[in-house]
Amino acid sequence: MEHVLQYIDDHADEFIARLQELCRQPSIAAQNVGMEETATMVAELLRRIGAEVRLVSTPGYPVVYAQIAGPPGGKTLGFYNHYDVQPPEPLELWKSDPFAAEIRDGHIYARGVADNKANLVSRICAVEAYQRVKGSLPVTVKFIAEGEEEIGSVNLKTFARQNAELIACDGLIWESGYKNHGGQPVSSLGLKGILYVELHAHGANSDAHSANAAVLPSAVWRLVWALNTLKGPDERVLIPGFYDNVRPATDAEVRLLEEMPLDEEAWKSSLGIDSFVLGLTGMPLKEKYLLQPTCNLCGFGAGYTGEGLKTVLPNTAMCKIDFRLVPDQDPFKILDGLRSHLDDQGFGDIEIKLVDADWAQRTDPGDPLVKAVVAAAKRVYAKPPVVVPTMAGSGPGYTLCGELGIPSAGAGTGYYDSKAHAPNENIRIADYIEGIKHIAVLLEEFARV
Amino acid sequence: MEHVLQYIDDHADEFIARLQELCRQPSIAAQNVGMEETATMVAELLRRIGAEVRLVSTPGYPVVYAQIAGPPGGKTLGFYNHYDVQPPEPLELWKSDPFAAEIRDGHIYARGVADNKANLVSRICAVEAYQRVKGSLPVTVKFIAEGEEEIGSVNLKTFARQNAELIACDGLIWESGYKNHGGQPVSSLGLKGILYVELHAHGANSDAHSANAAVLPSAVWRLVWALNTLKGPDERVLIPGFYDNVRPATDAEVRLLEEMPLDEEAWKSSLGIDSFVLGLTGMPLKEKYLLQPTCNLCGFGAGYTGEGLKTVLPNTAMCKIDFRLVPDQDPFKILDGLRSHLDDQGFGDIEIKLVDADWAQRTDPGDPLVKAVVAAAKRVYAKPPVVVPTMAGSGPGYTLCGELGIPSAGAGTGYYDSKAHAPNENIRIADYIEGIKHIAVLLEEFARV
Repeated sequence: MEHVLQYIDDHADEFIARLQELCRQPSIAAQNVGMEETATMVAELLRRIGAEVRLVSTPGYPVVYAQIAGPPGGKTLGFYNHYDVQPPEPLELWKSDPFAAEIRDGHIYARGVADNKANLVSRICAVEAYQRVKGSLPVTVKFIAEGEEEIGSVNLKTFARQNAELIACDGLIWESGYKNHGGQPVSSLGLKGILYVELHAHGANSDAHSANAAVLPSAVWRLVWALNTLKGPDERVLIPGFYDNVRPATDAEVRLLEEMPLDEEAWKSSLGIDSFVLGLTGMPLKEKYLLQPTCNLCGFGAGYTGEGLKTVLPNTAMCKIDFRLVPDQDPFKILDGLRSHLDDQGFGDIEIKLVDADWAQRTDPGDPLVKAVVAAAKRVYAKPPVVVPTMAGSGPGYTLCGELGIPSAGAGTGYYDSKAHAPNENIRIADYIEGIKHIAVLLEEFARV
Repeated sequence: MEHVLQYIDDHADEFIARLQELCRQPSIAAQNVGMEETATMVAELLRRIGAEVRLVSTPGYPVVYAQIAGPPGGKTLGFYNHYDVQPPEPLELWKSDPFAAEIRDGHIYARGVADNKANLVSRICAVEAYQRVKGSLPVTVKFIAEGEEEIGSVNLKTFARQNAELIACDGLIWESGYKNHGGQPVSSLGLKGILYVELHAHGANSDAHSANAAVLPSAVWRLVWALNTLKGPDERVLIPGFYDNVRPATDAEVRLLEEMPLDEEAWKSSLGIDSFVLGLTGMPLKEKYLLQPTCNLCGFGAGYTGEGLKTVLPNTAMCKIDFRLVPDQDPFKILDGLRSHLDDQGFGDIEIKLVDADWAQRTDPGDPLVKAVVAAAKRVYAKPPVVVPTMAGSGPGYTLCGELGIPSAGAGTGYYDSKAHAPNENIRIADYIEGIKHIAVLLEEFARV
């Protein structure tokens, strides 16, 4: 194995350049920018390591599927990634072009570098290194790289149902993983679900002079009042039944949370905040973060928000809400609950548009895959790995794993300040190289467990 | 006088072209577009009717001041107008370019045509017609055309204090006037005051992945909750003391309101609404519209409002609020009250930025100016004129009239569906020609009263 690790060190510059090249290719799913080009580029990267590659078309963006056979009768390890990225806005807050992949002080800055291009490329590089040094792989590997993760993996459900045999594996390495403030690699065993909706309020048939505000219904005020019935400053979501199906944490999950280091001061400092919501700290903070659902406002748009004074009564108002869900909340029941709640509160006029809905998913902490990920991490990283019961984020975990009975665990190259989805998204180059090594060793560990 | 009216009919095409030309020159004060060019163009229009013109510079946009002397010892009639316009956005809702001044079905469509370019040009044309036919004017006339009305007349206060002798007159015709659904010309005797503020909420030091919403403070939610403490669905403003100084309506004002025709069905139909706020109708609707203050949301901006799914926890949120005030509410006391109220409700972190503040103003319905405006209207218009105690809108009435003891009354060329401040702003050409005639006759009537 030492030779594999040496190969990775020897080829670090090349692996970094490969990542920069992919980051320089924009792939903004929400805005349909560069998607086909990026899928083709990912397919080419996989072909260059000898994989059998298929571009599986969907009604949206293609899924890149790739396979390299290991020993007959051996295990199969899957890698799930996505090649799409979030929109880069607000552009004025970036210190360098989000698609320049600029290197500064040992970091690579780019939209999508942390989420999820470095993880995707690190796995390709790991497989390449193992093959080049050892001649063949100890397990069959499969790559599934979709192009719609950032827009809710809209077509992945159909892909998964139609291609269960392509996905089938003994364990799937999830798209993400990161280093915490203490330098420990963090592996997550699950994902929150999501319900993403837009609320639309309507007033008169056009914007009006705001002098009419005394007597004309206001779309903006109605949306403000409606939102206020959803969640108050106590952070409790007021949709009846919202918490009914929240599964209590298992003993194993509670233990993982207890063992999970969390440098609250460093986290707060990196965020520039004085305290977390409700002044939470310790176990209640961890539980709220990972095991509780959310109701977040992603955006609110109405009327004139430019410079200077414009006195207008806008006739429409819109907001985007994401609820992050936990097992066993049903996103569709919550959508129904939201409709009933708005109706009951006198906001039957407010329109709900469903954007995305998915269930949460978690893997048993005792699964062999988890053991292999931990064992590999211990061999590569200076600090002991941390396993957490779930990420705070969402993804198609239920689609690819929960529904198909496949265990999953995270591994990746980000860190606590990677600013995924935010301006100046970045990874540290040293983490990237270690991430490649972790996957290379994992190939061997997974063959053993 | 018949010859003056005939002259106006004979020169209608030229007067229309003159207005189109001014409308085709953008003059967006909030965005500093075309302001100097427009001031120069207005000055030239005034010079062409023989006025002594001064461009009075201010720290912002110049005030165009002009004067034409009447008989010695005679009365002086002032005209207040503004040459700036509101921003034209949202552009996609215009049926023709907002600066094309397109004529369709007897209407001129342009940003600023109703508010306030047609009124300005109609007064210039009226004075021209009177002079050409009669040789000289029966009163001295003064024109004051500022370039900052749509951004709160920020520099007009200083201009007025430094140039009281320029403004001095026996009556000032206010910038606006319109025809109601019944075809009657409406003259207003006052203006509401205004307090325009921005509220800014701040969260972490940058946008974050919305997975963090379980524990990170949200700027958007805080702004929603703060707004909810300002006004609820009962439309009552909850800032303590907000209504304390609202002056009760005089008997004369109540009578004007009672006499004021209001075709509620036609108004609702033109707005596309089923009912006014709180289901108001009749006198309570009129009183709320004209004699009560407002709290309107002009705009709300936060996070991602583009297409598709972006899961983000925005770190800032902003809204623009305009309060329309009535006599004798003090905008600065209300600003202080807003700060205290937010503090008391636990929103001390929300920043208030003052954009504009001005008092309300009203003229006594018994003033000679009002009599002259009514008498002139009766000679020109087919339908009897309507006098209302105040407009629902705001303007520098206190600055130019209230503070200097000058009576004012409105007269103008708009109509009930002119869509001021909104897409497809327009006037009817027939109203424009009648408006020119009204001002021409008014010159004579005002000399008499």
